[in-house]
Amino acid sequence: MSKLVSSLTEAIQKCGLKDHMTISFHHHLRNGDYVLNKVLDAISELGIKDLTVNASSIFDIHEPILKHIKSGVVTGLEVDYMGQTVGEAISHGALAKPVVFRTHGGRPAAIESGRTPIDVAFVAASQSDEMGNCTGKYGKSACGALGYAMSDARCAAKTVVVTDDLEPYPLQGFSIPETDVDYVVAIDAIGNPAGIVSGTTKITRDPVGLKMADMAIQVIQASGLLKDGFSFQTGAGGASLAAAVFLKDLMLEKKIKGSFVMGGITGYLVDLLESGCFRNIMDVQCFDMKAVESLAHDPRHMEVSASHYASPTAKSSIADQLDVVILGATQVDTNFNVNVHTNSRGIIMGGSGGHTDIAAGAKLSMIVAPLSRARMSLVVDRVQTISTPGSTVDVVLTQRGIAVNPRREDLQVQLKKAGLPVVSIETLKKTAEEINGIPEPLALGSRIVAEVEGRDGKLLDHIYEVL
Amino acid sequence: MSKLVSSLTEAIQKCGLKDHMTISFHHHLRNGDYVLNKVLDAISELGIKDLTVNASSIFDIHEPILKHIKSGVVTGLEVDYMGQTVGEAISHGALAKPVVFRTHGGRPAAIESGRTPIDVAFVAASQSDEMGNCTGKYGKSACGALGYAMSDARCAAKTVVVTDDLEPYPLQGFSIPETDVDYVVAIDAIGNPAGIVSGTTKITRDPVGLKMADMAIQVIQASGLLKDGFSFQTGAGGASLAAAVFLKDLMLEKKIKGSFVMGGITGYLVDLLESGCFRNIMDVQCFDMKAVESLAHDPRHMEVSASHYASPTAKSSIADQLDVVILGATQVDTNFNVNVHTNSRGIIMGGSGGHTDIAAGAKLSMIVAPLSRARMSLVVDRVQTISTPGSTVDVVLTQRGIAVNPRREDLQVQLKKAGLPVVSIETLKKTAEEINGIPEPLALGSRIVAEVEGRDGKLLDHIYEVL
Repeated sequence: MSKLVSSLTEAIQKCGLKDHMTISFHHHLRNGDYVLNKVLDAISELGIKDLTVNASSIFDIHEPILKHIKSGVVTGLEVDYMGQTVGEAISHGALAKPVVFRTHGGRPAAIESGRTPIDVAFVAASQSDEMGNCTGKYGKSACGALGYAMSDARCAAKTVVVTDDLEPYPLQGFSIPETDVDYVVAIDAIGNPAGIVSGTTKITRDPVGLKMADMAIQVIQASGLLKDGFSFQTGAGGASLAAAVFLKDLMLEKKIKGSFVMGGITGYLVDLLESGCFRNIMDVQCFDMKAVESLAHDPRHMEVSASHYASPTAKSSIADQLDVVILGATQVDTNFNVNVHTNSRGIIMGGSGGHTDIAAGAKLSMIVAPLSRARMSLVVDRVQTISTPGSTVDVVLTQRGIAVNPRREDLQVQLKKAGLPVVSIETLKKTAEEINGIPEPLALGSRIVAEVEGRDGKLLDHIYEVL
Repeated sequence: MSKLVSSLTEAIQKCGLKDHMTISFHHHLRNGDYVLNKVLDAISELGIKDLTVNASSIFDIHEPILKHIKSGVVTGLEVDYMGQTVGEAISHGALAKPVVFRTHGGRPAAIESGRTPIDVAFVAASQSDEMGNCTGKYGKSACGALGYAMSDARCAAKTVVVTDDLEPYPLQGFSIPETDVDYVVAIDAIGNPAGIVSGTTKITRDPVGLKMADMAIQVIQASGLLKDGFSFQTGAGGASLAAAVFLKDLMLEKKIKGSFVMGGITGYLVDLLESGCFRNIMDVQCFDMKAVESLAHDPRHMEVSASHYASPTAKSSIADQLDVVILGATQVDTNFNVNVHTNSRGIIMGGSGGHTDIAAGAKLSMIVAPLSRARMSLVVDRVQTISTPGSTVDVVLTQRGIAVNPRREDLQVQLKKAGLPVVSIETLKKTAEEINGIPEPLALGSRIVAEVEGRDGKLLDHIYEVL
C-alpha cells in the first residue's frame, strides 16, 4: 500500500473535496511557493466552488488566488499575514466575506480546538517518502522548518503532502509523520528557491536604522534582562537584524551565555548560536539558506510547531519564555497599540504573524521603527488597525526618542538611569507631527473587508474597504 | 511561570486526581522503573481510591501494585504486557475486574480515539526542563526512546513529567514538547539503570537456538524478500538476536542494502545500522545502552511514537511497511494462533506488546521457538490464550521442522524449493507429542481474570483464573 497518487487532481478527488469545504496551506516556501496556486488551479478545473482557504500567510506570488476569488472557487480567506498584492485587492472589496486575520499562535489554537476545522490540508514538503513522512529540511526546494504545517497536518480530516523530492521509506529526519498523511503527490517543483529566501533578511546600512539598533541594545542592557540564560527574538527587518549583530558583539564582550533565540530564523541568528552567545535556536520557520543548513545539521537548532512556538491554549509555549523581543510597526498610537496590518492608505500589506503572540509573552517587548516613513508619522492618536494591543507593548523606540508604556514605570526608571532618551509617547507623536504635519484622516468605506482576531481568538479590530 | 512542583503529591493534587479516575504509565524504564511505584504510594497516602492504571507494560519491579490492589487504590488494570510476578497474582484472582490486554498499536489507537480516556499521565523522563520539554535519550537514567508515552502525554487531561535530571530551558533534543505537559516533578532517581537494560537482550549460545536462527535466515532468503530496501524486525530473545547477527553476515556477503529495522532496539540492531546493512532504525523503545547511545547521537536512528510504530487507526504505521518479522511464542496451535500471554500452567507472564501488530503488518511473519520447553509442547490443538490470530502468522519454525500457514501456499513452494524442512503444523504437533506426551488439559476456574483485545480493540480471548 502506498499513498502516492499521480496528480494533485487525483489527490483532491480522493480526499472527497466538495463545495463549501475548507482547505489549508502553510507559508514556509514564502514568495517562492508554487503549491497554493497549483492546488487552486486543479480545484478550479474540477469545478469545486465556495471554498474557504485557511493559509498561515499569503504572499505576492499568490496573486492568482484573486482570479479564483472572482470565479467563486474561493469565497473565504483566513490568514495570519497577507502581502500587499492580494491585500490591495481585498482592501478594495474583492472578497464578499471579510478576511479573518489570526496570529501565528492563535491559528493553531483555533485548529486544535476544533473552532476552525480543516477538510483538506496541503503540506508543501521538500522531501517525503511515499507514506508521507516528510520534511522541509532537505532537497532542492528546502525551506527549513515546517512549524506552521504541523497542526494542519494533524487535525485536518485529510492531509495531502506535495513534494518535488520523493525519497525511499522511511524518510530520515521527518518533521511530520506518516500517521497524519493521507496522500502524497510528487510534482516537478514545489517552489522557486529564489523566492523561498525572503528579500527582507539583509542587515540595514541606513544610518537611522543602525542608530536605532544601537539604542535597542542599550535598552536591553538597561532592562537588566541581559544575563546568562537570556532569551531573544527579533524580526527579519533590517534594523532588527542589525540589533542582532550588535547584540552578538555585546554578549561576546560581556561573556553572557544566552539560552535560546526564537524566530523566523535568519543567518544572523545562526551566527549568535555558532559564536556561542546562545545555547539553542527554536525554529518555526527559516528565512534564509544559512538557517535551513543549520536546522538540517545542528542538533542545537530545533524545529518546533506553531503551537509550541506561540499557541495561547497549549499547556505552555516558547513565546511565554522570551525575555526580549524586537518588533516592527507601521503605526503606533498613544495607547501603544501597534498596526502591522495596513499602510498609510489603509491598504492591507501585512498581518500579526507572531508579533501579537510574542509581544504578549515576552518580559520586554520593544517596537523599533523610524519616526517617519515617506512623510508619514509612526505615532498617531489611534492606529488604523490594532494588530497588537498596547497593553502588551513595553517600549516604542525611534531615532528621536524612546517611549515607555506607563504601566512599566520600573522600566522607565531603568532606562532613564542608563541615560537613554526617554520621552512620552505624546512627545514622540508631537515630534513626528512637527516633521510630517498632522495626517489627514483616511476616508474609508463602511464595508468591513477583514476582521482581526487577537491571539485569544476574540475580535480585536476591523479593517474597512478602501474607496 | 514554571511547571515545577515540589513533590509527586503536589503534582497529583494539582492535577485534581480523584477516585474512579484513570492514570497512565509507560514502560521504557522496564524492570528498573521507580516511577509507577512512587506515584501509587503517593496516591495511596492521599487516600484516593478506585483508580484504573493504564500502563503500556507492568514488570516484576511493579510488584507493589498488588498491595495497592488489595487496599482498593487500584481496581482496574489495562496493559500491553505483564511480567510473571504480578501476572501470577492476577491469574489467582487478585483483581476483581478483568485486566484488559491491548497491543502496542491498539493502546495508542484506543487513547487517541477517546475510547480509553486518561485523566493523568505520568511520564518518566531522564531529562526535562521545567516547562516539560523532555526526553529519555540523555541523563543518568537514560532509557532511549519514549515512544509509548507520546499518545498518553498528548491526550491525557493532565500530564506530569517525572525526572531526575532537570536541565535549563529549552531542553535540546526533546521527545515530548511542553505543549503536552502540565507539571514537572524532580525526584532523586526515576529508575535503576541496571534494571532499565533488560536481561533478555543477549544472543543465545544454545545450539538449538543457533540452529533455529540459521534456519530462520534461510527462510528469509528463500522468501525472496531479502533484497535492497528490505525491512526487518526481531524480538529481543536469544534466538531472535542470533538471527539478527546471521542476517548481518548474509547481507554483507550479498551486498544487500536494507531500508530499516524497527523495534524494541538492541545493540545487535545498531550493529546492522553501523555496518551499513540498513539505512535507518525506527525506535519506539530501547533495550540496551548501545541502543540508547545510538539514538542519542546518530540521526539515522529515529525515535517514533507507538502510534507511528503500530497503530491500526493511524493514517499508516511502520508495522505495515515491514517485510519480515521474527517473533517468539509460548504456544502455537494448529490454526497458527500464537500465545504469548500465559505459561503452561495458565499463569499470565507476558502479553502481545507489538507481536500482534507486526504479525498483521509484515509480509512474512515468522514464529521461531523450540518444539519443547520444560517438557511442554510448543504446538497444541488450541492455544491457552490467543494473543496473535493465526490468520496473521505465516511460518512456525522449530528445530524439528518448519510449518507454513496453508493460506501461504506461495511461500510453502518457495521454502520447499530451497530444500528447507517444511512439514505440516500437525506433524510438528505430533513430533512434539512424541517427545513430551500429550499434555493434560489445564483445570482452570470459570472466572475471567483478563480480556485480550486484538489490535482493532475487539475481544480476541479471555484468560481464566488459575485455581
